[in-house]
Amino acid sequence: MIDPRPGVSSTEEISLDELQLAARNHGMPLEALRYDVTPIGMHYLLTHFDIPNADAATWTVEVGGRVERPLVLGMDDLRARPFVTTVVTMECAGNGRARLHPRPVSQPWLSEAVGTAEWTGTPLRPILQEAGLEADAVEIVFTGADHGIQGDAEQDYERSLGVAEALRDDVLLAFEINGQPLPPQHGFPVRLLVPGWYGMTSVKWLTRMTAVTEPFEGYQMDAYRLRQREGEPGTPVTRMQPRALMIPPGFPEFLTRVRIVDAGRVLLQGRAWSGVAPIERVECSTDGGASWAGATLGPMPPSLYAWRSWTFGWDATPGEHELAARATDGTGSTQPVDQPWNHHGLSNNMVQRVPVRVR
Amino acid sequence: MIDPRPGVSSTEEISLDELQLAARNHGMPLEALRYDVTPIGMHYLLTHFDIPNADAATWTVEVGGRVERPLVLGMDDLRARPFVTTVVTMECAGNGRARLHPRPVSQPWLSEAVGTAEWTGTPLRPILQEAGLEADAVEIVFTGADHGIQGDAEQDYERSLGVAEALRDDVLLAFEINGQPLPPQHGFPVRLLVPGWYGMTSVKWLTRMTAVTEPFEGYQMDAYRLRQREGEPGTPVTRMQPRALMIPPGFPEFLTRVRIVDAGRVLLQGRAWSGVAPIERVECSTDGGASWAGATLGPMPPSLYAWRSWTFGWDATPGEHELAARATDGTGSTQPVDQPWNHHGLSNNMVQRVPVRVR
Repeated sequence: MIDPRPGVSSTEEISLDELQLAARNHGMPLEALRYDVTPIGMHYLLTHFDIPNADAATWTVEVGGRVERPLVLGMDDLRARPFVTTVVTMECAGNGRARLHPRPVSQPWLSEAVGTAEWTGTPLRPILQEAGLEADAVEIVFTGADHGIQGDAEQDYERSLGVAEALRDDVLLAFEINGQPLPPQHGFPVRLLVPGWYGMTSVKWLTRMTAVTEPFEGYQMDAYRLRQREGEPGTPVTRMQPRALMIPPGFPEFLTRVRIVDAGRVLLQGRAWSGVAPIERVECSTDGGASWAGATLGPMPPSLYAWRSWTFGWDATPGEHELAARATDGTGSTQPVDQPWNHHGLSNNMVQRVPVRVR
Repeated sequence: MIDPRPGVSSTEEISLDELQLAARNHGMPLEALRYDVTPIGMHYLLTHFDIPNADAATWTVEVGGRVERPLVLGMDDLRARPFVTTVVTMECAGNGRARLHPRPVSQPWLSEAVGTAEWTGTPLRPILQEAGLEADAVEIVFTGADHGIQGDAEQDYERSLGVAEALRDDVLLAFEINGQPLPPQHGFPVRLLVPGWYGMTSVKWLTRMTAVTEPFEGYQMDAYRLRQREGEPGTPVTRMQPRALMIPPGFPEFLTRVRIVDAGRVLLQGRAWSGVAPIERVECSTDGGASWAGATLGPMPPSLYAWRSWTFGWDATPGEHELAARATDGTGSTQPVDQPWNHHGLSNNMVQRVPVRVR
């Protein structure tokens, strides 16, 4: 069956277009949930177009638009500024997309488009203050060097952020990850970092910041909206919804990735996060979501926007089981067991399901 | 149409099983061909089962079987030994698999399962000499900590190497990549490195080396054989066949990855390698393989097993074009334009094709 809606597929199978994206981009293997900070190379990665060939020696970030004193900052300027280091969990807004029916056609994430890094950078607010942000500016447009065509629009990747969010004291221009200069694929030499928001906001390979007096209507602002059908106005995708993920227990079968677990006491472990409010509760199900019981939350994470560990003891009995976990954040928002479908498969936090075979 | 042969698919579309592998493992985005040494996180990565949770403080590598003096080496022992650093190109034996028709069902690589790293480690031969390899040993079996089920066999990932290959002076137990300790996904704390061979030979998370008097017949030895049909004896997959890859020129369309190029002189660039003999020639085609012309080879690479750069000047005229590149090594072996099909899609070096739209 071909779904009549453009941009979605009702077949289970993945197209060559989607595979090309999956081969370039990559998720975090879920066993990496064991690390407080995700090692470089295991953090999820999505590049819209190409990873630019950047030269830090000549790289500049322009600050312009509605500012009194336009700035051009080189990497030496940025690195000479006060810096902070913060642990932040980042998730792709399309995470979970390939589990939806019908399936929105784009990068086909299952549930692994996440990672937590220790980012080092200089706060954005003092830079905007030095430039003298005009009172009528409502948004800052962030432009990256990643160039291509999407939705028939040739573009440098660009996203905007409202002035109030851009002036938050934890928004950074980041130039290090896990104590090292950014590798090319994570935005070398400098990227925006907006803790709490899905990854599309943290523009990589930052070249320009432009203060504007009207909401920015570039392609990527339209693309990241929640709508049921193409053409609807929809609502913008912003902060990460609560999600818990589990380290798949036992060991896998190569092709199916079904997990084999020995009967007896099994300590299920994972992480949970939300960009809206701290994680308040994680529950597990060992019967495919029919019943739920509370997991034990680990220590408070090192920052408001870092994931929190959790554990759950399970008495595994021989047979086939489906494990699941769900998180609830401080606003009372809980992950749905059924799919929260939308046209682009964005901001979708349906619970993860882990089939296991206990022997 | 369902292909009657087990393990292959005649549909263009990728199954969920294959997508699960593609989401975990990842290729090297082809623009990374611009780097002599692939940055960490961009090098291709294939993990058969799970990335183990390794502790370097307690990790040991056992040397046993047909040796006079069995050894147990900790990481301090290994790091105290003489070490060398060498630049090596490594490719997955399954590279190109998803371009075959019918498609062997496994990790669905297109053409990006490659990378070049600067590996640091201690040579294997002196360790085997210290252990006193017996004269009747014919192979060394290398065991990794990666555990799972494949082909109905529960296993630690294991591959063997003939004694003559194992005693080559460039075979290493590697503990650093690009000047840093191995990250977990590349075999932390120590892995085998066999320059020139496809990646399956360079066993990650090495725990044991066992000298044996008969050829090892473990699952992974049977899996990596060239055969036309399941059940045939086939021949073993060994060294990397010659391959050239091109940096896709211009910029991409997000979903289709078609490249947009401005008309005029375009400098095509890429890399070529072979595990059998040095690269002797690279040719390019700008008409889908109908005609070929020689590319200019870059300087000799820093080691016998590192890729070599090449360039090719192209006068791009408006319209649709299909670019291709092919390498020939010192044995006269050239990449095929038509698919060299085999049952598991292994050691397949069919030429890359890059569709471009010149404007």
